[in-house]
Amino acid sequence: MTTAISRFPVPALDDLPEDIRGRIVAVQQKAGFVPNVFLAWAHRPEEFRAFFAYHDALLDKPGGLTKAEREMIVVATSSLNHCHYCVIAHGAILRIRAKDPLIADAVATNYLNAPLTPRQRAMLDFAVKVAARSHEVGEDDFAVLRTHGMSDEDVWDIGAIAALFALSDRMANMLALRPNDEFYAMGR
Amino acid sequence: MTTAISRFPVPALDDLPEDIRGRIVAVQQKAGFVPNVFLAWAHRPEEFRAFFAYHDALLDKPGGLTKAEREMIVVATSSLNHCHYCVIAHGAILRIRAKDPLIADAVATNYLNAPLTPRQRAMLDFAVKVAARSHEVGEDDFAVLRTHGMSDEDVWDIGAIAALFALSDRMANMLALRPNDEFYAMGR
Amino acid sequence: MTTAISRFPVPALDDLPEDIRGRIVAVQQKAGFVPNVFLAWAHRPEEFRAFFAYHDALLDKPGGLTKAEREMIVVATSSLNHCHYCVIAHGAILRIRAKDPLIADAVATNYLNAPLTPRQRAMLDFAVKVAARSHEVGEDDFAVLRTHGMSDEDVWDIGAIAALFALSDRMANMLALRPNDEFYAMGR
Amino acid sequence: MTTAISRFPVPALDDLPEDIRGRIVAVQQKAGFVPNVFLAWAHRPEEFRAFFAYHDALLDKPGGLTKAEREMIVVATSSLNHCHYCVIAHGAILRIRAKDPLIADAVATNYLNAPLTPRQRAMLDFAVKVAARSHEVGEDDFAVLRTHGMSDEDVWDIGAIAALFALSDRMANMLALRPNDEFYAMGR
Amino acid sequence: MTTAISRFPVPALDDLPEDIRGRIVAVQQKAGFVPNVFLAWAHRPEEFRAFFAYHDALLDKPGGLTKAEREMIVVATSSLNHCHYCVIAHGAILRIRAKDPLIADAVATNYLNAPLTPRQRAMLDFAVKVAARSHEVGEDDFAVLRTHGMSDEDVWDIGAIAALFALSDRMANMLALRPNDEFYAMGR
Amino acid sequence: MTTAISRFPVPALDDLPEDIRGRIVAVQQKAGFVPNVFLAWAHRPEEFRAFFAYHDALLDKPGGLTKAEREMIVVATSSLNHCHYCVIAHGAILRIRAKDPLIADAVATNYLNAPLTPRQRAMLDFAVKVAARSHEVGEDDFAVLRTHGMSDEDVWDIGAIAALFALSDRMANMLALRPNDEFYAMGR
Repeated sequence: MTTAISRFPVPALDDLPEDIRGRIVAVQQKAGFVPNVFLAWAHRPEEFRAFFAYHDALLDKPGGLTKAEREMIVVATSSLNHCHYCVIAHGAILRIRAKDPLIADAVATNYLNAPLTPRQRAMLDFAVKVAARSHEVGEDDFAVLRTHGMSDEDVWDIGAIAALFALSDRMANMLALRPNDEFYAMGR
Repeated sequence: MTTAISRFPVPALDDLPEDIRGRIVAVQQKAGFVPNVFLAWAHRPEEFRAFFAYHDALLDKPGGLTKAEREMIVVATSSLNHCHYCVIAHGAILRIRAKDPLIADAVATNYLNAPLTPRQRAMLDFAVKVAARSHEVGEDDFAVLRTHGMSDEDVWDIGAIAALFALSDRMANMLALRPNDEFYAMGR
Repeated sequence: MTTAISRFPVPALDDLPEDIRGRIVAVQQKAGFVPNVFLAWAHRPEEFRAFFAYHDALLDKPGGLTKAEREMIVVATSSLNHCHYCVIAHGAILRIRAKDPLIADAVATNYLNAPLTPRQRAMLDFAVKVAARSHEVGEDDFAVLRTHGMSDEDVWDIGAIAALFALSDRMANMLALRPNDEFYAMGR
Repeated sequence: MTTAISRFPVPALDDLPEDIRGRIVAVQQKAGFVPNVFLAWAHRPEEFRAFFAYHDALLDKPGGLTKAEREMIVVATSSLNHCHYCVIAHGAILRIRAKDPLIADAVATNYLNAPLTPRQRAMLDFAVKVAARSHEVGEDDFAVLRTHGMSDEDVWDIGAIAALFALSDRMANMLALRPNDEFYAMGR
Repeated sequence: MTTAISRFPVPALDDLPEDIRGRIVAVQQKAGFVPNVFLAWAHRPEEFRAFFAYHDALLDKPGGLTKAEREMIVVATSSLNHCHYCVIAHGAILRIRAKDPLIADAVATNYLNAPLTPRQRAMLDFAVKVAARSHEVGEDDFAVLRTHGMSDEDVWDIGAIAALFALSDRMANMLALRPNDEFYAMGR
Repeated sequence: MTTAISRFPVPALDDLPEDIRGRIVAVQQKAGFVPNVFLAWAHRPEEFRAFFAYHDALLDKPGGLTKAEREMIVVATSSLNHCHYCVIAHGAILRIRAKDPLIADAVATNYLNAPLTPRQRAMLDFAVKVAARSHEVGEDDFAVLRTHGMSDEDVWDIGAIAALFALSDRMANMLALRPNDEFYAMGR
């Protein structure tokens, strides 16, 4: 018995526009498998392009946050949103980026009690505030992050990653997007 | 005294990449002013392109939802997220699209009591569920929408608009994005 | 097609007791129309008299709060209570009292991000606390308001207005009280 | 050591307007003591008159709800609002009106598990809905109450009592209104 | 008409294992009646033994908290959990232990406004935090309690009592455990 | 750098009472390591004995629930309580008992979307209701479980496991109990 990876139709690779197929093939060659998020979003090519452009603009850019820290933001806020796909997939990426087999589960279950630096704790406090009650964000929040050496551009990055996964988690939940089995044991 | 339109720097039009400047100029010519969301997002050109590509893919596409209905989704979920910019700006667009000067405030304050068709009420129930507790979305929700004549593609549209404004509202709140004065009285 | 202004019967003016009819006629002459709240409450003359006596005792009395500030309290707490009638009707009054076409929508959507003085922000923080979790009010709340120059009588006024509209919003929601069309564009 | 009955000044009986002093003396003669709510509200004579007029219009009128049932509404919603004064004072009145020494504590702690008739349970479900999330009240709620033999006027009474104590509980909490010691053991 | 004391079968005393019957008889001789919690839990002898062993280890041990203070923790957290049995039964015990006929109802309705020492207020703040959102407990909470002269062992006691009644309240609610009539008037 | 396994002192095995040391040694021999919960609770021998007696009475007894199902209850409710220790440790046990490397993370992130049988879904709905809002449990909940073939004793088991981990999760959170590293990869 297999479960569908999405509540919506999943296109065959050969039916996809060239740029989307190219991106998926490249991921497959690098990761060894195609993460289901690519196949599910490919049902809507325009949205696929916009989503991964946004993703790359925030997750793959240079900046004050390490790649592991960006994944912490994804895991903490996706756990808040109860997004099965994002917690599992980005938990795996976090373990790899942080070279720490334990950190993802700690952040997912209760980041308040995870082994983080004070800077990382402040980063996640802000990310979770943006995710859960962004209308309460105020100047004080920026001031706190500055005391941890964050620039305003870093703050934008934190909030924007939380905001992008506010979108992504809701989509994945609506689609009942299934995490690939490969993710569960990666980096452990 | 004027209030900044964003907590982050706002670029001058002349400093922007050609494609972004072009888009902004086109909007200005059509609307008579530049909605602040364009200027604020332009601080990050990559994110600008991704955001508006996503926006156009959902708000400007053909499909089973009218343009007014799509704006109802934006207003209802942005009100839930207490996003000043989106409620004011998309409230104006909703009034114009629906040719109804009263509908936007009704939807923003309490869509449960707004003068909607049963189909629109079901649409907003689903949009708000995606916005507030997407992890509870289940097959039953799809079934309800089908009884109102919605196709699965319509359901994707509803949820995806709610998801996109989950992103947009959080960004606007983090930026303290100020609505242009022009929006408040439009369509009344 | 017209929607009823209340889920309950609305009396004809001629059937009302003299004092109630007099009050309504006076309002009509001043405003140019009869706000629906008067007609809906007139279904219960005793409650009509008590409600407007309470209203006048708080909204029309002298005191440390300006009339615009009192309306801010109504709009902020009625928005919290998702009361369509009160947000629209008192939003109109707020715009007029404050001579500011933008303030009401800002306060209704997210007063935390509205252009307020620090004193007004503290005033609304207290009003919203009384509206949402009055059992947590403590001496510290009074102390904060005193630092903004508020007297204890001002504090009573803030809390009492929030409390009166806790009643009013719940009644209006139960009645599905419809705002008069005139309110939407007043003061813009 | 005695605790003040209110955070605000409490007037001496002799300083009160005649009508207010008369009402208080009458209550004292009937009850054997002056419930603190009368003294605390007397700090503001206009509000005193309006409040007790509203109270009498709902609690002392004829109608489909028994006097005990009206007190159940007060106790259930005041418990939700964590109002010390109202739970204690109206708990006492409920015990007396219902001639049941146990009912008030059951309703205050968890009305869902209290020994009520199905009609009373439906009555409190509606009252609590008005108290906690009145914007969700809809036609279905009226239909449920009608199946229990409630008239629309009964429904108004239920909701209006919940609304009045939404006001009263918030005021009492702001005032830190102390229940008279006499109430605790009355009717046990 | 009598209501069952539990949704589950209640064993006859004679059918109980010797140790359990002995415990129940001893309680009966001391209190004059058998509190229903003993009969309801006796349906599962192993759980009975474990529960009362846990109870005695926390409520009957020496330590920095007075017996009245321990009962305050039970009443405050059981009220939060809307547990009819525990609020009534332990409210009675609190009145007796504190020799104060008024304290239990004050703590049950709103401990934030009850006549407590600052140390007791801090104790209940911590107990309620453990009861409602234990994952937010941090070093700062321990520091606050130390400023009130609490040892770390006292802190364990507070949290453990809150945790034990997290169990007990949930069981009693599932069982619809009825408080004995005797408790209501005890200690008044 | 190592993190303490508990905020409270952890006794040396040799200092423990014979029965407690015996239990710990037996666990160590079976599991290959000593789960930290045993060491942390051993700080209080009486509570240790009561806790594990309760645990064994519910997790190791015969009954209608499989051992894997009981662990599902622990994981779902401990995730709700954000208990790092219990989610990790019982997640491991669940993987082993269910012989399924993926089930624990699915249940922990969003059991509503996990691959469960309808009976298991109903079981977790009830467990989560007991964990989060036990005062709303009513006859209808029992009826639903009976339609899935559950006996009343099974219902007790479900609710009692949820209740026991209401205790356990709160204690572990107060202690900042650290999961053993061994748990993270077990059963994957």
